[in-house]
Amino acid sequence: MGAGDEFELIEAMRRTYEAAGGPPPGEVWIGDDAAVVTGSAGPLLLATDLVVAGVHADPAVSTAADLGYKALAVTVSDLAAMGARPRWALVSLAGPPGSDVLAVAAGVAEAAAEVGCAVVGGDLSAAPVVTVSVAVVGSLVPPGEPGPLRRSGARPGDSLWLTGPLGASAAGLRLARSGATSGAAAPLVAAHRRPRARLAEGEAARLAGASAAVDISDGLVADARHLAEASGVGLALVGIPVADGATPAEALAGGEDYELLLATPDGSRLVAAFAAAGLRPPLPVGTCTPSPGHHRLDDGPLPAGGWRHRFGAPEGG
Amino acid sequence: MGAGDEFELIEAMRRTYEAAGGPPPGEVWIGDDAAVVTGSAGPLLLATDLVVAGVHADPAVSTAADLGYKALAVTVSDLAAMGARPRWALVSLAGPPGSDVLAVAAGVAEAAAEVGCAVVGGDLSAAPVVTVSVAVVGSLVPPGEPGPLRRSGARPGDSLWLTGPLGASAAGLRLARSGATSGAAAPLVAAHRRPRARLAEGEAARLAGASAAVDISDGLVADARHLAEASGVGLALVGIPVADGATPAEALAGGEDYELLLATPDGSRLVAAFAAAGLRPPLPVGTCTPSPGHHRLDDGPLPAGGWRHRFGAPEGG
Repeated sequence: MGAGDEFELIEAMRRTYEAAGGPPPGEVWIGDDAAVVTGSAGPLLLATDLVVAGVHADPAVSTAADLGYKALAVTVSDLAAMGARPRWALVSLAGPPGSDVLAVAAGVAEAAAEVGCAVVGGDLSAAPVVTVSVAVVGSLVPPGEPGPLRRSGARPGDSLWLTGPLGASAAGLRLARSGATSGAAAPLVAAHRRPRARLAEGEAARLAGASAAVDISDGLVADARHLAEASGVGLALVGIPVADGATPAEALAGGEDYELLLATPDGSRLVAAFAAAGLRPPLPVGTCTPSPGHHRLDDGPLPAGGWRHRFGAPEGG
Repeated sequence: MGAGDEFELIEAMRRTYEAAGGPPPGEVWIGDDAAVVTGSAGPLLLATDLVVAGVHADPAVSTAADLGYKALAVTVSDLAAMGARPRWALVSLAGPPGSDVLAVAAGVAEAAAEVGCAVVGGDLSAAPVVTVSVAVVGSLVPPGEPGPLRRSGARPGDSLWLTGPLGASAAGLRLARSGATSGAAAPLVAAHRRPRARLAEGEAARLAGASAAVDISDGLVADARHLAEASGVGLALVGIPVADGATPAEALAGGEDYELLLATPDGSRLVAAFAAAGLRPPLPVGTCTPSPGHHRLDDGPLPAGGWRHRFGAPEGG
């Protein structure tokens, strides 16, 4: 059997994923039909994302390791937006013959180690393009109240906050495609290639009484709408912070920043909690209004936009 | 926005998945950043599989719904092989424009309903080919001892059993490709298109003191080796049962039957437990021997074979 044999690769991946430590006594990770982990009190949080080379990452910009890093990070970001911590991940990798799936796994492992999440199982398959599917299981710390941060908990009068300025990912993609990857472009390109899940921020917000949260994956204009529609409130957004080097359009609709949009009835408590946790101060971006469907940005309507995959017949079909 | 809009599709999928019932109070399923489910005592079992049209299913033989059904069923089969029950599934669907992802979701939902597993979240994406990734979280019932059925628990002298005859899936694929899908071919084609996870059998075996189990996904010759190698035993297989209409080669190496191979120190207890549960009698197929690496079939060596995905350089490269 050659170097690309499935079972040799799985063993190499197991070593990669367990570099930060293998299963504790009583647990089973990679190598059996299913993983066995130790349950605990309180709710479980479950999230998954599928990342496809050429769709979610431009192979001319992002390496195989970047793709793996991103797949893990964006899935964990869904837990950050609930104020939860990731505990275990399952990672399926697929690609055509010659794919460097071990490089993808190395990127997954790096992202997982950074957030303290164990990769405990997965699948390996052939596919026409490199594809990474990650599922994460998380929990709340402590396990009781306050509960997970829903999208639907915002109320009229709640203030809205971002965990950081927006547009860095879209600007980084633009710059990398133009060949600019060093100097001032470097942090923007890094933000695109290796997004960070705002886990500490989500947890601090939940413990500080935030009412709702969503992560900015599809772009602020789309994700803010998701939060407003789920909560039955309107939006009055003002002064959206733009990352250095990004355009206002990239900040509003570029997507993939993975900052969190937070709503809270007590903004000063949120600010104090972030300060106490040593986090960057949250940035105020407006308020929730009592008018569902009314979405304002500064002095005008909130523009349309944001990323949507399309599947069915073409527009008009 | 057209009929293929991502968010309309997600809502249609939510209705499909929740046809058998939505989230109980306190739980959050589809529609937020992550699902929230109610944890419980005892270990959690985690498994995932990625299924790609054209790789794991021939589009000329299997419909989109069959592909979805299969993706859920084969993932759940990993829990069956541990003696566990599936509780929650995350399902990611991807495909090119025009893909009937709702038909895939309908097949997923049908398989999930049959095994009592709730689809609580997922992802929807563009991809060059239809791809389904399923992750399942399961538990043991009751949650305490005996623990999950490992591959590694077989001991010399344990008897080996199959939950059913083998080769039906491979025979069904052969027949469907030749245009024979009715009459005697129908149950074989159905076995290929819509495999069943042997959940009741796995659980009965665990509760009856079985020592090890593996599901037959890659073919008996491959999966029996997995069990033997993990357990550090040899194999003496005799009288492998061949499904009606299948060839002996299909039974040995065809794969995708998803029957369970069980080892136990007490075969009569296993037989009695299956009878008490109203299950088909398990079929004896040999014993575990004290000689690791020695794998016998009837009067000769166990042949090589079984399905392996390949990734790296071509053979010899």
